[in-house]
Amino acid sequence: MKNKKQHVVIVGGGFGGISAAKQLKKADVDVTLIDKSNHHLFQPLLYQVATAALSPGDIAAPIRAIIGEQPGMHILLGEVTDIHPEKKSLELADGRTISYDKLIMAPGAQYNYFGNNKWKEHATGLKSIADALDTRERILLSLEEAEQINDPKLREPYLTYVIIGGGPTGVEMAGAIAEIAKRNMMRDYKNISKNETRIFLVEAGPKILNGYPEELSERARQMLEDMGVRVLLNTPVTNIEENAVQFSEGTINTPNIIWAAGVVASPLLDTLNVEQDRTGRVKVNGNLSVPEYPNIFVIGDAAHVKGEDGSPLPALAPVAMQQGKFLGQLLKKAPSKINDTPTFHYKDKGTMATIGRAKAVADIKGFKFSGFPAWFMWSFVHILQLMCFHNKTRVFLEWIWYYFTFKRGVRLITDRLECKHCSENEALSNLKTDHPEYDLSKNNHN
Amino acid sequence: MKNKKQHVVIVGGGFGGISAAKQLKKADVDVTLIDKSNHHLFQPLLYQVATAALSPGDIAAPIRAIIGEQPGMHILLGEVTDIHPEKKSLELADGRTISYDKLIMAPGAQYNYFGNNKWKEHATGLKSIADALDTRERILLSLEEAEQINDPKLREPYLTYVIIGGGPTGVEMAGAIAEIAKRNMMRDYKNISKNETRIFLVEAGPKILNGYPEELSERARQMLEDMGVRVLLNTPVTNIEENAVQFSEGTINTPNIIWAAGVVASPLLDTLNVEQDRTGRVKVNGNLSVPEYPNIFVIGDAAHVKGEDGSPLPALAPVAMQQGKFLGQLLKKAPSKINDTPTFHYKDKGTMATIGRAKAVADIKGFKFSGFPAWFMWSFVHILQLMCFHNKTRVFLEWIWYYFTFKRGVRLITDRLECKHCSENEALSNLKTDHPEYDLSKNNHN
Repeated sequence: MKNKKQHVVIVGGGFGGISAAKQLKKADVDVTLIDKSNHHLFQPLLYQVATAALSPGDIAAPIRAIIGEQPGMHILLGEVTDIHPEKKSLELADGRTISYDKLIMAPGAQYNYFGNNKWKEHATGLKSIADALDTRERILLSLEEAEQINDPKLREPYLTYVIIGGGPTGVEMAGAIAEIAKRNMMRDYKNISKNETRIFLVEAGPKILNGYPEELSERARQMLEDMGVRVLLNTPVTNIEENAVQFSEGTINTPNIIWAAGVVASPLLDTLNVEQDRTGRVKVNGNLSVPEYPNIFVIGDAAHVKGEDGSPLPALAPVAMQQGKFLGQLLKKAPSKINDTPTFHYKDKGTMATIGRAKAVADIKGFKFSGFPAWFMWSFVHILQLMCFHNKTRVFLEWIWYYFTFKRGVRLITDRLECKHCSENEALSNLKTDHPEYDLSKNNHN
Repeated sequence: MKNKKQHVVIVGGGFGGISAAKQLKKADVDVTLIDKSNHHLFQPLLYQVATAALSPGDIAAPIRAIIGEQPGMHILLGEVTDIHPEKKSLELADGRTISYDKLIMAPGAQYNYFGNNKWKEHATGLKSIADALDTRERILLSLEEAEQINDPKLREPYLTYVIIGGGPTGVEMAGAIAEIAKRNMMRDYKNISKNETRIFLVEAGPKILNGYPEELSERARQMLEDMGVRVLLNTPVTNIEENAVQFSEGTINTPNIIWAAGVVASPLLDTLNVEQDRTGRVKVNGNLSVPEYPNIFVIGDAAHVKGEDGSPLPALAPVAMQQGKFLGQLLKKAPSKINDTPTFHYKDKGTMATIGRAKAVADIKGFKFSGFPAWFMWSFVHILQLMCFHNKTRVFLEWIWYYFTFKRGVRLITDRLECKHCSENEALSNLKTDHPEYDLSKNNHN
């Protein structure tokens, strides 16, 4: 038994999981990384796929391509459904059991519809490529629909967008949709004018970009308003139905409802039966281990780690990456030394959010700025962080292209048409054309 | 009535339909182009999406982006289900009726499973983005599966590929899969070796690339064999079941069955009740009109047009484009002059097929060549033909990247996971892991 290598299992191939795996490259351990999908997704740019600026392939890279060549690394496509700390094993959806010596849980978070799971059907979130393609399809189909309705009153819902949640994702989505609606793309549609588009960014709290310095939140709000986005603060959603969002003040009718509000940590963590915070994150020790189980660690969006000011660290890629790196370095050491390591400390390199072309806000170690410099820096940092060189080049060129042409390249309703199982044609079944006033024959000649 | 513009309806946004629409740019007519999807697809490069070299967005462009800004142009997302020549109208799947004065039918072709529609479930064709993503997913999942099986005999089916049909698509697919299997991508998989991969290109007739000069067919066959593809000639398929292709000589077991054999013209043409050939193509007059209906024209893969040697023109993009251009020019003229126009003549600029990196065959006006020059020319011609500048740049850079690195960029099993209607998780339900010999715990430490 003495000669056997330790087996480190990592659950999740996001920023945290991949960083940990990379650190273990030359370590004398066996590593197995398990993920539901075969690719690592650069989530901060997912909104650009949803708004047809980038292709899924631009922001996703196969996990095997990133770490597959590392010796001692096993990559497993599968879904973990249960954790058995006493047996030191995991259960997968297909019934397989995987044993571990050390377990790194990096399963991330998912959208939280505040207990209203019905809302999810009508308001897509933005966590996976499927989500992003769904949103892209919804926006493009909505424009096709609007183009075919001659009565401006009846087509209003199809030219209305509601983004729920004023965090970075909501702000970025609202800005991107405003650019689509106000720019050349609309030239391709002859019946509708850009002034008909209505974009609402709805936030339950008193400001957008909560957690950012007050003046940047305000600056971002102004930029959005200047682009034609109506920012509704202190406006909690009371209900979401098909094609309608309700507030205490009234209802907005539209099929274009995008959910970018609160998240909860992966429900997989509930199977651990340890202390979690209000949003399901596991409260971990200073070295990121679970108090009850010193061989289980939780990182990234799934972990509740106190920052220097006592509040939990935000759910951001740099936090997950630094935690992954810290853990990887920790687990390289001899097992006996693991539990007397120093505490994880997050190095905050600043926060940024982009609002549109040449528009962004940034706070780098207290130095606050906005506009073109912030946008340029945002672009630079995101390009640098894209995991492989290939994606960097593509996204860089795509952005240069977009900067000069304002054209979004990937406006495809890819015919994910027929589900193999129920043969339902998804894209076309979403397109409703029973508008009584619509009659193409009047343009015609019979 | 005299002042009303003629209404030209084009069914299909492929090479033929788009070419016709472009010609009508400055014509004094109203044009409506109807397509089931919102994008024009560059079908000759679809196999590169299926083999993870290009993204769907690289080879597809929104129809609106190509011709949407033309005055008098209407673009309609919808599916035509019936043609009523006597009423001069079309019926759409959603019940709408569209009237026309002149009708250009460019609905293309679909795969023909020789009456065995059950085969279709097990052998995906390659006509749409959905087809290509399906094939890509199948290949990638198959590799994941193989990697997890320790017994080489049991994993053999997952490393076996059968491509049915030795036309250009089949040849290109076989070559691309050979490159994947023999090159660096396999380095990411530790359990399987590149020598385990078996690729079969199966052709019912006596040669591949039928219609090409004999020496080029033979040269292509040699190149494929050199790359490790086994080319089976005179080998008609007798049956296809789940994970098995049967021939009179025996059976090949694999989930990776790709159908690139015969096509039939769109079944929509059957509703015209006019003379069709064996593969459903409408036999048209010299000016491409239907004998019974001088105001209905058929072009592209859906039309049977005799070439100079008396045999029908092949189903190739240049044929469709030249026909679309011819018709567009014809319909620009005053209606009275339409029926005394000259006959359509196809200008054959040569045929090419690519087999792999720096490997292709070409026949340009009788000048036959192969290898790097043919491949370079093939790349050049295809880049030039990509409809918008944006796609040209992307594909060009992607190919340069691939040429030097051999790396395929878009190896994503995009989680087109849950069908909204039946909640079936497609990608993961395809991954079977009930291999008795598979037991990860033996790598482990309990």
